[in-house]
Amino acid sequence: MAEPLFQARVLTLFPDMFPGPLGHSLAGRALESGLWSLAATDIRSFAADRHRTVDDTPAGGGAGMVMRADVVARAVDAVHKGGEPLIYFSPRGRPLTQRRVRELVAGKGATLLCGRFEGLDERVIEARAMEEVSLGDFVLSGGEIAALALLDAIVRLLPGVMGKEISGTEESFEAGLLEYPHYTRPPVFEGREIPPVLISGDHGKVAQWRRQMAEEATRARRADLWEEYLKERLARGKNV
Amino acid sequence: MAEPLFQARVLTLFPDMFPGPLGHSLAGRALESGLWSLAATDIRSFAADRHRTVDDTPAGGGAGMVMRADVVARAVDAVHKGGEPLIYFSPRGRPLTQRRVRELVAGKGATLLCGRFEGLDERVIEARAMEEVSLGDFVLSGGEIAALALLDAIVRLLPGVMGKEISGTEESFEAGLLEYPHYTRPPVFEGREIPPVLISGDHGKVAQWRRQMAEEATRARRADLWEEYLKERLARGKNV
Repeated sequence: MAEPLFQARVLTLFPDMFPGPLGHSLAGRALESGLWSLAATDIRSFAADRHRTVDDTPAGGGAGMVMRADVVARAVDAVHKGGEPLIYFSPRGRPLTQRRVRELVAGKGATLLCGRFEGLDERVIEARAMEEVSLGDFVLSGGEIAALALLDAIVRLLPGVMGKEISGTEESFEAGLLEYPHYTRPPVFEGREIPPVLISGDHGKVAQWRRQMAEEATRARRADLWEEYLKERLARGKNV
Repeated sequence: MAEPLFQARVLTLFPDMFPGPLGHSLAGRALESGLWSLAATDIRSFAADRHRTVDDTPAGGGAGMVMRADVVARAVDAVHKGGEPLIYFSPRGRPLTQRRVRELVAGKGATLLCGRFEGLDERVIEARAMEEVSLGDFVLSGGEIAALALLDAIVRLLPGVMGKEISGTEESFEAGLLEYPHYTRPPVFEGREIPPVLISGDHGKVAQWRRQMAEEATRARRADLWEEYLKERLARGKNV
């Protein structure tokens, strides 16, 4: 059998959460057919004492528990393949972007480390040079659902998973813009019609309208993305 | 039995993906004990034809399929409780924040609509005044993992789920800052020591150090949050 296009190694205290939702639909079929692989390893199996302790109270006091550097380091050293990304999900990390997803898709795999409790002892993050990634500005109970989200974003872009259905350049963020709005049958829904240009048969006008809608949505909804888009357009213009 | 503290109604083409990871750990125990409830409904059961069609080709052409407004409207009307949030996950939506999570926790429940394919016909989003929420600037194959993430963020904040372990004010984003770094035993890991202030026993100095570390991390890693933080601090200063 051919090598999987992407090999995911997940370190977690809850290996039973995987593949979870990724065992269904397109990602599930691609997993079954070997297009990608997923190995979830229990961090607890790297504990050194007979109670299989993975966490301890925070130095300096405070609520919650912190995952021990030594236990986590052993788990990482056992499964992580050098040269590949080692990602630790944390609200302190760099927010995930579609650009980073595409970079990961271009690689062969990654190790995803899911923290629980208050997170990891900072020293193991430094010592193993982990890439800290944040799903967004909200707090989850652990990194597991963040790992599922990242893997879903990666797997759908692997060749053969979505087939021709996926048109990379027209998706949100690919051109630095939000996507244009979509319409389909019926022609009238609760008195609302499909915008006439979309049924005009004029492909040039459809493309123009969609671009305009994408720009309007981005300007109205996401001032931050809009500013970036204008800057990049300006920079491109100068190079022409 | 007492009423659940939060009632989640999920509309999806993949009801088997739920509760998925939320059936484990703290969220799973809270679900079992009735602290929150989760009802996943198959959108496909609201299709009108014998093929149970939920999608159709996009008006104006292009790749992918669009979910029909009429089918989705029937599904929403069957499960959504008026007055509660009706959330549709889309990269075109407002990025999820911890503030929005806290607002949802203060309510009694929500309906979460998970799109697939290219997304919903725009007319049903407008006609049902859906709140469009984005998990982040990346593209998922559907709204299901986004719904799991939002529910995880909500459930962990429900009273009784995490007990005293959770200290809301010290988490990332609660004060507009990223969290400070954590340390625990062993005192030395691969030659790296725990910062001495944390084992000094001086609670005032520990608190001061943590605040400083939180500010430094935010400034270094997230210029956007740091700017907001400075603005708010300035505004508060003026009111004193």
